Amino acid sequence: MRKEYLLTPGPSQVPADVLLKLAEPVYHHRTPRFKEMYKSLTEKLQKVFMSSGDIIIFASSGTGAMEASVVNIVPRGKKALCIAGGKFGERWSEICDAFGIAQVRMDVEWGKAADPKAVADALASDPDIVAVYTTLVETSTGVENPIRDIGAVVAATGAVLVVDGVSGAGACEMRVDDWNVDILVVGSQKALMLPPGLAVLTVSAKARALLDSVDNPPAYYFNLRKAVASAAKTDTPYTPPLTLMEALLVAADALVEEGMENVFARHRKYAEAAVAGLKALGLKVYPERPAAALTAVEAPAGIDAEKIRKIAKDKYGAAIAGGQEQLKGKLLRMAHMGYVGPMDIVIGLAALEMALADMGVDVTPGSGVAAAEAVLRSG
Amino acid sequence: MRKEYLLTPGPSQVPADVLLKLAEPVYHHRTPRFKEMYKSLTEKLQKVFMSSGDIIIFASSGTGAMEASVVNIVPRGKKALCIAGGKFGERWSEICDAFGIAQVRMDVEWGKAADPKAVADALASDPDIVAVYTTLVETSTGVENPIRDIGAVVAATGAVLVVDGVSGAGACEMRVDDWNVDILVVGSQKALMLPPGLAVLTVSAKARALLDSVDNPPAYYFNLRKAVASAAKTDTPYTPPLTLMEALLVAADALVEEGMENVFARHRKYAEAAVAGLKALGLKVYPERPAAALTAVEAPAGIDAEKIRKIAKDKYGAAIAGGQEQLKGKLLRMAHMGYVGPMDIVIGLAALEMALADMGVDVTPGSGVAAAEAVLRSG
Repeated sequence: MRKEYLLTPGPSQVPADVLLKLAEPVYHHRTPRFKEMYKSLTEKLQKVFMSSGDIIIFASSGTGAMEASVVNIVPRGKKALCIAGGKFGERWSEICDAFGIAQVRMDVEWGKAADPKAVADALASDPDIVAVYTTLVETSTGVENPIRDIGAVVAATGAVLVVDGVSGAGACEMRVDDWNVDILVVGSQKALMLPPGLAVLTVSAKARALLDSVDNPPAYYFNLRKAVASAAKTDTPYTPPLTLMEALLVAADALVEEGMENVFARHRKYAEAAVAGLKALGLKVYPERPAAALTAVEAPAGIDAEKIRKIAKDKYGAAIAGGQEQLKGKLLRMAHMGYVGPMDIVIGLAALEMALADMGVDVTPGSGVAAAEAVLRSG
Repeated sequence: MRKEYLLTPGPSQVPADVLLKLAEPVYHHRTPRFKEMYKSLTEKLQKVFMSSGDIIIFASSGTGAMEASVVNIVPRGKKALCIAGGKFGERWSEICDAFGIAQVRMDVEWGKAADPKAVADALASDPDIVAVYTTLVETSTGVENPIRDIGAVVAATGAVLVVDGVSGAGACEMRVDDWNVDILVVGSQKALMLPPGLAVLTVSAKARALLDSVDNPPAYYFNLRKAVASAAKTDTPYTPPLTLMEALLVAADALVEEGMENVFARHRKYAEAAVAGLKALGLKVYPERPAAALTAVEAPAGIDAEKIRKIAKDKYGAAIAGGQEQLKGKLLRMAHMGYVGPMDIVIGLAALEMALADMGVDVTPGSGVAAAEAVLRSG
């Protein structure tokens, strides 16, 4: 009797009412019914992301929307500032390279957060930078970057701030307007509680102006200017991912009904419980600024994290992610975003403490769960 | 974000592939397609219950099938022996009363198991008894009765043994042929991993002979002789619960694939883990012979079990059952049957230890989970 608990940082768990919506009959998208749904969805997503800007939806993974927010934004002769502190931060840089877009790359040690002061210095020293690219939650390291502070820095310049919020937006605190985020990129399969396949962007007036300045961007499907123009008419340039959008409306409704302040607090509490539990097991939390959406922790010295994961999954049914790139075998990453409750934290910790004990690591059984329970009971 | 874990002893959790089967289009039941499915289902259920007898299916709750196995079995002038050691054992007696069927009622103290020796004595002292009615798992008390021993006693007489296996058959050890069970009654919403609405009976040759001796039973829909005759032609007297049967085939396939010996061992292990965890929390397990399908435990002295349940459910999402009748407010009942994995035990115990702590009960956080982990890790 196999029963799996998906605790990976995307895809994440999908609530039953969202799954059922996906099973409804398909209708045509060039209809008033679609426009009405799209209008509602736009309004809800504006509330979820606390944005008064345009809401653009692509049938793509989050990476597609990242590409859209690079190729349409940086004109030839200008530069992107790419903050790379993990696999996903580095993706901004890779996209620039793929399209021959000039960049200033700011490498951040993995596990550390981006430094707003360094961003200010970079912007001051190179007036060709028109856009700053960073990451809300660096999923590969579990870092949550100080977007509010970076936003304040960028807002004081002519540049726009583009944030990869694929992992985290909808779970971690993220206030697009207040924090001066010009483009926020989000994927469906994380805090938005959907299967993969859909990406969302918010686009500020400042970003829209930049879009209009870029002629002939290297984009057709991902032409953001065209998408923004269509969205103004509650329409899409190409066939939209209709059923995923219907399902997203269900998920967004749930988030708005819960209230984003409650959503933020709930995820912060999960993170505190996970961190407390993992520390009680004697493990070292990896990031210097742990995210509300997932917790990354180092495997004990000399123990292969992949073996721990395999036991947690095969024997106890808890699917926990491992490390990526140079962290493979060294890191365990437990997500707690989206359709998650207190018991998901308990499940992840119980699976880890049993797996560690199975591997002969000296852990006190129940100690991780006990520490998490103290946090989960509070408030 | 509400997330509920159903740990009640029926309805229980339903696997996704069973739910999806229920969503398939309906077809007609007087067709070769139905006959083929019914034939497969019969063969699978014979394996699940280890019975070579007839397999009868009613669209009803388990109680309907209990009624069928009383009214069609005890002829006028003869008697039923009803073993009543809890709410469900008493139901046999209530059914006899409703139809004016003579009975010898054997009351067993709640929390205690039925005594095979007492059954032998009752049968020896009253030759009018043609059927013995008992319960595999007395859900109200968490007792698992010694059916094997009772079966040996009854098999040595002319009487038949009828077992209410609604709660437990398909999870607890139950070998219909080997244990001389003439009629086993099972409901869909427990170990069979279906929603409620369907009941199964196994009917032995000995029981069939008795059926044939009862003329004009007080039954129309629940006429078991008619149902057996139809089943011999892979048919049903009235419209069968087609989609539930299709779904049951999926569930039965999974049980047969796992292997019933493995199924029995798995549930026994869950029970051991639950008992170990609850004892570690200082709680007293209620039944003298704890079932593999659920664990009933007393609330701490002076603490209302209903309040514990409410916190476990509302704050932590774990739906645990309470006591019934005179045990209301005194008992907590945590099921572990059917679509259940090791984490369900962890979830139930974590919810209880948090709820107890919230109520000011002196429990060591994590101690229940730790004790269960030791059992779950073994073997």
